[in-house]
Amino acid sequence: MTNNCLLCEVKGENVVVSHPKYRIIRVADVQFPGYFRVIWNEHVKEMSDLCETDRHLLWDVLNKVEKALIETMNPKKINLAEFGTMVPHLHWHLIPRYEDDACYPDSIWSNKHRSCSDEVLREREKLADDAEERIKAIFA
Amino acid sequence: MTNNCLLCEVKGENVVVSHPKYRIIRVADVQFPGYFRVIWNEHVKEMSDLCETDRHLLWDVLNKVEKALIETMNPKKINLAEFGTMVPHLHWHLIPRYEDDACYPDSIWSNKHRSCSDEVLREREKLADDAEERIKAIFA
Repeated sequence: MTNNCLLCEVKGENVVVSHPKYRIIRVADVQFPGYFRVIWNEHVKEMSDLCETDRHLLWDVLNKVEKALIETMNPKKINLAEFGTMVPHLHWHLIPRYEDDACYPDSIWSNKHRSCSDEVLREREKLADDAEERIKAIFA
Repeated sequence: MTNNCLLCEVKGENVVVSHPKYRIIRVADVQFPGYFRVIWNEHVKEMSDLCETDRHLLWDVLNKVEKALIETMNPKKINLAEFGTMVPHLHWHLIPRYEDDACYPDSIWSNKHRSCSDEVLREREKLADDAEERIKAIFA
């Protein structure tokens, strides 16, 4: 635990999978249904700060979540990102992307180009429910 | 090779490491010295499309480049990203980030907050030269 680190404590997170080393959370971003994060529990900054065993474990987790998102949500593309410039505590963003989403083909951190229709977002939120169930089952 | 894919052909790239399976290139982004990309040579879309051996190989490459960037450039944080929404051909962005860079703490795909001073950028470009040499040596 590091003082004032927002990710050292589980607070206000929708935790889908809780493992001693990491947790998987579903992010409530209306424009991007199916956005999940994988957060390493220990306060570590970089991927290369992990020992090889832990790094492989985390990569394997990312791969499983990516596959679950593809299989349940059929996105045009998956985005993977590990920044840590806002909160320097190792965490990964996994975001299913669609050609009609708010920022496509730019990153979700870029300017928005459009509003995705409410109907489409509602449908995708249901697919994200399926993704959540799949992820829970994979890591059970 | 897929028709019209910008990354299927090596064209106008500053290739630092050339491996049968992947290449490492140095990106000419004035605002972000030390920005490298790892491009998988085969036209594959997602990380989970790779077989386990290739995926582990690529992860290991990312880890080595990340470590080389940290050791030579001493950034505040490394950013790792795999998007593929512009060009759906597997490639990774590795970017050393500094608190005075153009977008910090936001992503480099977000709006710019400032201009980093030319002097600082020149110094960092020299460190990026060191990073390039280190990466070449590691993969030699």
